[in-house]
Amino acid sequence: MLDPWSVSGIDDYEKLIREFGIEPMSSDIVRRLPKPGKYFRRGIIFGHRGFDVILNAILNGESFAVLSGIKPSGSFHLGSLTTAEQIVYYQKEYGATAFYCIADVEAFCDNRIPYEESFEIAVNNLADMLALGLDPERAYIYRQSEEKRVMDIAFEAGAHVTTAMMKAIYGEQTVFGLYMTALLQVGDILLPEHEDFGGPKPVVVPVGADQDPHIRLTRDIARRLHPHHKFVPPSATFHRLIRGLDGSEKMSKRNPMSYFELSENLESVKFKIMNALTGGRPTIREQRELGGEPHKCRVYELAFFRVDDDSLVEDIYHRCTSGELICGDCKAMIFEKIAAWIREHNLRKRKMVDLARKILEENSVSPTCRPGISRP
Amino acid sequence: MLDPWSVSGIDDYEKLIREFGIEPMSSDIVRRLPKPGKYFRRGIIFGHRGFDVILNAILNGESFAVLSGIKPSGSFHLGSLTTAEQIVYYQKEYGATAFYCIADVEAFCDNRIPYEESFEIAVNNLADMLALGLDPERAYIYRQSEEKRVMDIAFEAGAHVTTAMMKAIYGEQTVFGLYMTALLQVGDILLPEHEDFGGPKPVVVPVGADQDPHIRLTRDIARRLHPHHKFVPPSATFHRLIRGLDGSEKMSKRNPMSYFELSENLESVKFKIMNALTGGRPTIREQRELGGEPHKCRVYELAFFRVDDDSLVEDIYHRCTSGELICGDCKAMIFEKIAAWIREHNLRKRKMVDLARKILEENSVSPTCRPGISRP
Repeated sequence: MLDPWSVSGIDDYEKLIREFGIEPMSSDIVRRLPKPGKYFRRGIIFGHRGFDVILNAILNGESFAVLSGIKPSGSFHLGSLTTAEQIVYYQKEYGATAFYCIADVEAFCDNRIPYEESFEIAVNNLADMLALGLDPERAYIYRQSEEKRVMDIAFEAGAHVTTAMMKAIYGEQTVFGLYMTALLQVGDILLPEHEDFGGPKPVVVPVGADQDPHIRLTRDIARRLHPHHKFVPPSATFHRLIRGLDGSEKMSKRNPMSYFELSENLESVKFKIMNALTGGRPTIREQRELGGEPHKCRVYELAFFRVDDDSLVEDIYHRCTSGELICGDCKAMIFEKIAAWIREHNLRKRKMVDLARKILEENSVSPTCRPGISRP
Repeated sequence: MLDPWSVSGIDDYEKLIREFGIEPMSSDIVRRLPKPGKYFRRGIIFGHRGFDVILNAILNGESFAVLSGIKPSGSFHLGSLTTAEQIVYYQKEYGATAFYCIADVEAFCDNRIPYEESFEIAVNNLADMLALGLDPERAYIYRQSEEKRVMDIAFEAGAHVTTAMMKAIYGEQTVFGLYMTALLQVGDILLPEHEDFGGPKPVVVPVGADQDPHIRLTRDIARRLHPHHKFVPPSATFHRLIRGLDGSEKMSKRNPMSYFELSENLESVKFKIMNALTGGRPTIREQRELGGEPHKCRVYELAFFRVDDDSLVEDIYHRCTSGELICGDCKAMIFEKIAAWIREHNLRKRKMVDLARKILEENSVSPTCRPGISRP
């Protein structure tokens, strides 16, 4: 039965649970969380691996870490926020140490972005993170290219995986470096467990369901390295991805109407929201009679992900399904909510750019051979 | 026509020249070298790639580097000396900067030797190098696991090679890490060209012919990275490998009678030499009549590689082929030469162990995640 908090488009996610052994995020777990955030309350986090370890750490007041990162290849957009807000959530609500990785080696390998260029993108990304509330005093923020310990783990992991495993997980890759960056990600995920950071310890990695291969590989390698490092297999939560505004199943850079960036001008954001796929009926008369279909509506999905106030989301749902709220008005209202948030966010962000640069410059600890930087 | 300096067992090497594009080490090049060492004079170095760059640097008094390394998985043995002496040769005769890599990541990946164990082996190996005359003041001696710049180049190289290239060069490897250590070797070879070391500059890598795949890959990658790093494609010389004393084609740890270690007791060395394959005739009478066949003789080969005095090697050759020298006497004499050298070497080496340890400890610059070291 549908209600404001029932989750649409979940078939694929149930398949992941059935076929890949992701555990469902049960209502029992959510109930036991002292402060279930909106992503938990709303079922956006639909599954996990090993989250019981994190729940126990939370309930027993034990130290744990949350890790995520960003490939510095573009601006923060609507889809980036889901992971970003979860990092801040664990740090703020439960005192977790946050690890935030700037995956510049990946940006170089996947997108050929030289390090000097990805550095500037990373400054911008990190300013977004700080504006979202990441406390840099309780976070380890680093660039992959500067973090030798991540490379150490990657090489050690390489000695413990077979070529067949890499192919089974990542398919046939033309560029060999893509397999190597997969092992760098393993290094990133295990970094909070390094003895330099007081590890081993529980780590939670909030990811989209498409990242499960990395999680499975990392948990497997953590077990293989256990005799020496005593790593706790890292936990992960899996969240739904917010779908394309235009009705596409995925937001995609190739399809600018499917998403917007936080730095985009608000006229453009408005245009995309006003043209988004809704659950509206062909005519206003039908809509008044039958009510709208919020589970088909990408603007309702936007509110579902981005509006914090549960009662407002419920109100939209009921006024839509009852036929009281017409799509045009609804879109305008939700745009205003979103626009207000973006304006505030960008105000906060502007004050964070210098700090972001300072943090990333200070973490340039070692002289490195930087791709893409010509010698003087 | 055979003479004391004609080289036996060279068919395979000629095939490398014909089929893989290794350039023959011409007598013209050897003549132009101001100080041709015994490996050049005797044709033990049979081929090269890009050695003209090094010859020009030598002739013009320009700066260049020589690089080699060792996988710290055992003691120095007879076969280790060929490369080792060439490093010392370039450093001593032409003022080259020496780079000496302790390939501990490879030892871990190939042989599962934990870093704490390979460290001790490396101390021992480096003491041998110092006893052979390596001047640590003009050498950069490092452990692969500690040298982030090598890892940086390996990851950058990974972005520039295809999976198909790696398979074509190294075959189907079960352990994925073996491909990664191949790229670490690329990083090692290009390290002397890093701007931190005043690169780019010519580098020569003396290797056995079996190492050509690494050289080809590295030269290819150097060209691909040229737009950013201006790397000079590294040069290599290829030397014959000293064959097994017992008549086997290759010295091998699986076959202890084929070789000896420098730390082996001299009775054991004597036993192996006295039982080695020679070019002797079935009876002493036949030998007096026909003379011996030094090109079949592994004891003559030992002298050919290890006795520095050209006139003594010539003398052995002529007295053997003329039937004057009988194998028993010859073996005893060559053993005495070898034993005297080993005794002196080990005396020198004992004085170098503390220095070797100090050098390797000082180069432990960064805290790392060490495989095989349990946490306290």
